[in-house]
Amino acid sequence: MSLSLYEASVPALQQSLGALGRILEKAEAHATARKLEPAALLQARLYPDMFAFTRQVQIACDFAKGMSARLAGVEVPSDPDTEQSFAELRARVAKTLAFIGSLDAAKFVGSEAREIVLRPGTPKERRFHGKAYLLHYALPQFYFHVTTAYALLRHNGVEIGKLDYMGAA
Amino acid sequence: MSLSLYEASVPALQQSLGALGRILEKAEAHATARKLEPAALLQARLYPDMFAFTRQVQIACDFAKGMSARLAGVEVPSDPDTEQSFAELRARVAKTLAFIGSLDAAKFVGSEAREIVLRPGTPKERRFHGKAYLLHYALPQFYFHVTTAYALLRHNGVEIGKLDYMGAA
Repeated sequence: MSLSLYEASVPALQQSLGALGRILEKAEAHATARKLEPAALLQARLYPDMFAFTRQVQIACDFAKGMSARLAGVEVPSDPDTEQSFAELRARVAKTLAFIGSLDAAKFVGSEAREIVLRPGTPKERRFHGKAYLLHYALPQFYFHVTTAYALLRHNGVEIGKLDYMGAA
Repeated sequence: MSLSLYEASVPALQQSLGALGRILEKAEAHATARKLEPAALLQARLYPDMFAFTRQVQIACDFAKGMSARLAGVEVPSDPDTEQSFAELRARVAKTLAFIGSLDAAKFVGSEAREIVLRPGTPKERRFHGKAYLLHYALPQFYFHVTTAYALLRHNGVEIGKLDYMGAA
């Protein structure tokens, strides 16, 4: 065996969340330069029944925070979804980065076989072992929301490219 | 250590490519039911300088095939990008699934430290160890293109949802 669950989660999340923070800066600069209402980007959707940009960023943060906490076996911190500006979304990303950066890699040891229960006691309860939770649920979900946030900005003409999505490894 | 590089790549790629195949079926059924030109979806873009749907699917397949082959230490098969229909894209996905399903997990052993060179001898040459290549490059790229393909269909009104993206673990 050659990867720890810590290595397969936290450093990759740090890369993508760092990228998302810089994308938020570029989006705000774009709105400022063109005198756009920030809400034109913050509330943009790709289709009426999809989540708006702000919610995509919040959910990306939630998956990063949730998967890191659950694999580390610590409580998932609660964050109210109150962000209304690019600055507040950047702060949400920074807070998420601070949380996942605070987790000790040693806490992830053994998490591959630990049972993880989502939405316990509800009709939507789901149970996974840590390995399946990370690889088959949480990571694909995280990248989905980061990519959709990126796609929303590209669709609205913000000048970002694949390197902005990838960030610095 | 608790994950092999095989576990962190092939089964997750199989899940997402399986999902992508079913999404392609739903997109074609949508086009047929509404008497749409298939090209209205196949050539759709989220912005003029982004790749069209067909290319997003081809690139997703290329990342799945490329990362699996490189981590297994076998030659990356070449596929011409000639697909012009949903049926041909489904065949591309099926061919990719057959290839990655044919790889022996034992070949991935030791790949975390194996040097992987992309575009060797070109100005865009990049070198990674296998672990960084998988977690910090190939997986985020793969999910980017699968998600963008999904987003393009959603943006054009195809009735798919998050469960279609996630597929069956």
